[in-house]
Amino acid sequence: MSAIPEEFVNRTARLSEEVTRPFPASQKIYVTGSRPDIRVGMREITQSDTPLAEGVEKNPPIPVYDTSGPYTDPETRIDLRKGLAPLRENWIVERDDTEQLDGPSSEYGRARQSDPDLAHLRFEHLRRPRRARAGANVTQMHYARRGIITPEMEYVAIRENCRLEELRADPRYRKLLRQHRGESWGANIPETITPEFVRDEVAAGRAIIPANINHPELEPMIIGRNFRVKINTNIGNSAVTSSIEEEVEKMVWSARWGGDTLMDLSTGRNIHETREWILRNAPMPIGTVPIYQALEKVDGKAEELTWEMFRDTLIEQAEQGVDYFTIHAGVRLAYVPMTAERVTGIVSRGGSILAKWCLAHHEENFLYTHFEDICEIMKAYDVSFSLGDGLRPGSIADANDRAQFAELETLGELTKIAWQHDVQVMIEGPGHVPLHMVKENVDKELADCFEAPFYTLGPLITDIAPGYDHITSAIGAANIGWYGTAMLCYVTPKEHLGLPNKQDVRDGIITYKLAAHAADLAKGQPGVQLRDNALSKARFEFRWADQFNLSLDPDKATEFHDETMPKEAHKAAHFCSMCGPNFCSMKITQDVRDYAAAQGLSEEEARQQGMQEMAVKFVEEGAELYKKT
Amino acid sequence: MSAIPEEFVNRTARLSEEVTRPFPASQKIYVTGSRPDIRVGMREITQSDTPLAEGVEKNPPIPVYDTSGPYTDPETRIDLRKGLAPLRENWIVERDDTEQLDGPSSEYGRARQSDPDLAHLRFEHLRRPRRARAGANVTQMHYARRGIITPEMEYVAIRENCRLEELRADPRYRKLLRQHRGESWGANIPETITPEFVRDEVAAGRAIIPANINHPELEPMIIGRNFRVKINTNIGNSAVTSSIEEEVEKMVWSARWGGDTLMDLSTGRNIHETREWILRNAPMPIGTVPIYQALEKVDGKAEELTWEMFRDTLIEQAEQGVDYFTIHAGVRLAYVPMTAERVTGIVSRGGSILAKWCLAHHEENFLYTHFEDICEIMKAYDVSFSLGDGLRPGSIADANDRAQFAELETLGELTKIAWQHDVQVMIEGPGHVPLHMVKENVDKELADCFEAPFYTLGPLITDIAPGYDHITSAIGAANIGWYGTAMLCYVTPKEHLGLPNKQDVRDGIITYKLAAHAADLAKGQPGVQLRDNALSKARFEFRWADQFNLSLDPDKATEFHDETMPKEAHKAAHFCSMCGPNFCSMKITQDVRDYAAAQGLSEEEARQQGMQEMAVKFVEEGAELYKKT
Repeated sequence: MSAIPEEFVNRTARLSEEVTRPFPASQKIYVTGSRPDIRVGMREITQSDTPLAEGVEKNPPIPVYDTSGPYTDPETRIDLRKGLAPLRENWIVERDDTEQLDGPSSEYGRARQSDPDLAHLRFEHLRRPRRARAGANVTQMHYARRGIITPEMEYVAIRENCRLEELRADPRYRKLLRQHRGESWGANIPETITPEFVRDEVAAGRAIIPANINHPELEPMIIGRNFRVKINTNIGNSAVTSSIEEEVEKMVWSARWGGDTLMDLSTGRNIHETREWILRNAPMPIGTVPIYQALEKVDGKAEELTWEMFRDTLIEQAEQGVDYFTIHAGVRLAYVPMTAERVTGIVSRGGSILAKWCLAHHEENFLYTHFEDICEIMKAYDVSFSLGDGLRPGSIADANDRAQFAELETLGELTKIAWQHDVQVMIEGPGHVPLHMVKENVDKELADCFEAPFYTLGPLITDIAPGYDHITSAIGAANIGWYGTAMLCYVTPKEHLGLPNKQDVRDGIITYKLAAHAADLAKGQPGVQLRDNALSKARFEFRWADQFNLSLDPDKATEFHDETMPKEAHKAAHFCSMCGPNFCSMKITQDVRDYAAAQGLSEEEARQQGMQEMAVKFVEEGAELYKKT
Repeated sequence: MSAIPEEFVNRTARLSEEVTRPFPASQKIYVTGSRPDIRVGMREITQSDTPLAEGVEKNPPIPVYDTSGPYTDPETRIDLRKGLAPLRENWIVERDDTEQLDGPSSEYGRARQSDPDLAHLRFEHLRRPRRARAGANVTQMHYARRGIITPEMEYVAIRENCRLEELRADPRYRKLLRQHRGESWGANIPETITPEFVRDEVAAGRAIIPANINHPELEPMIIGRNFRVKINTNIGNSAVTSSIEEEVEKMVWSARWGGDTLMDLSTGRNIHETREWILRNAPMPIGTVPIYQALEKVDGKAEELTWEMFRDTLIEQAEQGVDYFTIHAGVRLAYVPMTAERVTGIVSRGGSILAKWCLAHHEENFLYTHFEDICEIMKAYDVSFSLGDGLRPGSIADANDRAQFAELETLGELTKIAWQHDVQVMIEGPGHVPLHMVKENVDKELADCFEAPFYTLGPLITDIAPGYDHITSAIGAANIGWYGTAMLCYVTPKEHLGLPNKQDVRDGIITYKLAAHAADLAKGQPGVQLRDNALSKARFEFRWADQFNLSLDPDKATEFHDETMPKEAHKAAHFCSMCGPNFCSMKITQDVRDYAAAQGLSEEEARQQGMQEMAVKFVEEGAELYKKT
């Protein structure tokens, strides 16, 4: 039965056009692995030449990690109504440890699928769900612990590596690959990511590959502190605003700008159908907070939540393909009173729902008591845990308090249990924390949760800037990433004020991409400085278009530049509007460099002989030569 | 001769109206010192009441440090053509160590003043300049070292303290003053700033009060790491764009949003006249880079710069009232070749001008060789040094290299010389530095420059986000402030791309205000968490208007909120658009808290008896009580 309204069809058509536009001077490239169906998409940014006194210097293309999926590949025809190609399907089928069901095994899933009133909202090409065969465990961790390298593991190794090994062998990249490597823990990250390394990290629980067997459209990615720092974006409708079309649009928009994973936090109507549309079109892992939907099913009355209906919700979502669940199993009854004197009590929605349930029943949190039951579900679909920090601080005043850390310790206890089931786990973190108290969060998480990947919301490092909380939180995020956090949950400028629109999503993502990149630079992730070096070289050489194309947001950079110097000719100008032609420091520096070159001095020599002596020589010889002219 | 064109008059009239609008729910208050003419302006934000089950809780007003000067005081009539009232004039005259000159003693100053063609640009009410009597030294450092507490020192003590001592004695503020204090160096900052402490810090060179005797309109402020972290804003026209009116407008705008100091970096036409307009209307210290103007005087030919014309430029600007000069005296000839193999060479305009001069003449930088001559000028007007980092890194690749640190060591040597003349000094810092290499900059500056205040541009912690460099740099800025930097030079979103407009200036300032505040929280500056606590309490209690009013940018917060919930009634709503009424975690938490209160348990008890036992008691009693209902 297909009854998608005309309006929605038109909208998806428009969307496709907007989001498939490739980035300027960029092309989609694919690196193939050990088998032809491991094809890892990347973006390659072409650069223009640098004019020299004689001839030109060829500037090589710069490959960058790409989250935009098929949307920026002109070879791919996008139709949101059909969904993306199921690139992992064969890998899953080949493993021969799953079975395809006749239909949803959750009660709610069946009810939604057969409700004729929902036909106008329903995704047309529903796939029958897949589940582990009785007794099987289909998690990436389970395979890893048995020594298996899955196609997913090989895929993420190629993806993380981003052609670095090839580039190292190419002389055009030698200078561009210069990088500061710190002496911190990051110095242990290998120069090249191999599939074996991925497997070992997943086996150890230090990294996860969120990849539900019912989300075959997914391009695998990895979350762990020995890999690139990732960012999560949140979208979701609420009772007050937003609709399915807007959410799908935001998901595709998020993929375009660099969201590595995406959480659908919808709390309003038609959550089930919204999620299906998102999943079928999502190249990135999708996470949810199942308690939100469970609460909707009991009309917002937390005390009426039961394990049975929550369990049904988990299965419903797992069979749609959700890749990770936020589960607030650490909000134990005994911790709730610890929040009573806080400035901002409990600010996690999930945390407060569970706290209310605990108090109403005077019983231990049913997610905690049923944790092993949940593990059984997770391993049947390979859904990863994102153990929720329901008691995270919602203000600077409440940072790192007993309630927060008591819950963190419980999350560590639960991590061990999940790992006994080979279920993948990451740990959610705060929140609002002043800068000097950020590191303690990472140190404690790594110790108490046995190095399971940390996944934090910011943290915001002050409370006084609503409207700018993408920034207050990016400051915390860059730091916490440097200290060892594996994934940063983005915050948009609308945080605390309203639901983000498309522009807010873009602002939030770019802000978090730069924070994650800064963290990668600081921890010394191999090869990541390439993009900084290439962009700075372009900037120094007045290759304006290259500078814009290499940036995280070429559209914004171009738009800002054009505000003061709109003419096309200015893109080749050897000056800019900040200083004008006579005062350009870069132009003057080029003169200095030309002069130095004319004296026949190279810095290589200077390095060998010692800088100071060389400087004297430079001056002496220069003085001499100058007199001759 | 007065010939200000009609258009400008109209423009200043409009300006006055826009910038004197007080912030919402705010009033200007003045704290008077030991004499009636020490009146320190602050802003006080009124809060609404919190409704309780019985009656209301009165929320006290929150005083905040205020840089907006007379512009937000409805009692003051602003007329940009007349300038601000010279509040320091009596203090300067009383000291009886200066003389008023008949007119400018610089050749250039006299020429500009008598040029009839400039009448249409000239500030109408020119004051005759003042200079130290022969043999006198009029710097704040000189007074401090002789044990004198000047009115300026008392002013900044009151200003820094921001009524904290009174608040501590008022029970309404007890909870709101809770603060995390770190165990770092910041733990040594005194709980209350006294005039004696200010004097001692200035005497030691650890802090400066930039306050030229020819800028009596100035509201004194202090820059030093044992005080609140300050922010500098840059404005300035160039040959390509901008005009006097725009620059004055930006200065007033900067004062409104929180700029502590302002640098006029103009490089285009009519620099002299632009500066006069700015100074006469500026409540904050004004800094310049005199070499920019000197270069203009020689038509952009760096090699034609001479000490004599540079000296005339220093005197010209000192007699107008510039409070600090950036002097690139550390760009020594021997360091220039160290930059030849950098990715981005020399990116400081001043640095590249001097480097070019050094190479052209094969002589040592004349600012270095004439440094003591410069000190003689500085102490005759109390102009502070901002020793420029002409060799700062312009890219991540060039961070913390030999060129940068060689210059920093020279700046330390120059600091010692300046201090022999009792001339105040701060040290400029980078630039572009990856996060893990930021701290080394502060540590080295404090060691090599004997704890002279550090004043840094960002640093940007990645190069790949043009269009978002207010953010990349604010991340570096918050960190470097925490480590001990005294003032942060703002960066706007247009950095690297174009000249900032008014909106960019506001974005840059708010971003840096939040970074500076985050640094203050992290180093444990006493009392600063008050604003976070008050705002978070307001947020938690759904006092929307209070939350907006307490924020750094109430206009933006209100605008964002109103996008999704525009109705006035929603400002009192106990939910927001993010979650809607049923899912509001704060509402649920309030239920939890009410419940806890109903059980008669206070957290004070819990603290005394140990959290864990108390939690058990809470549950047991709760369970019991619940059964009775």
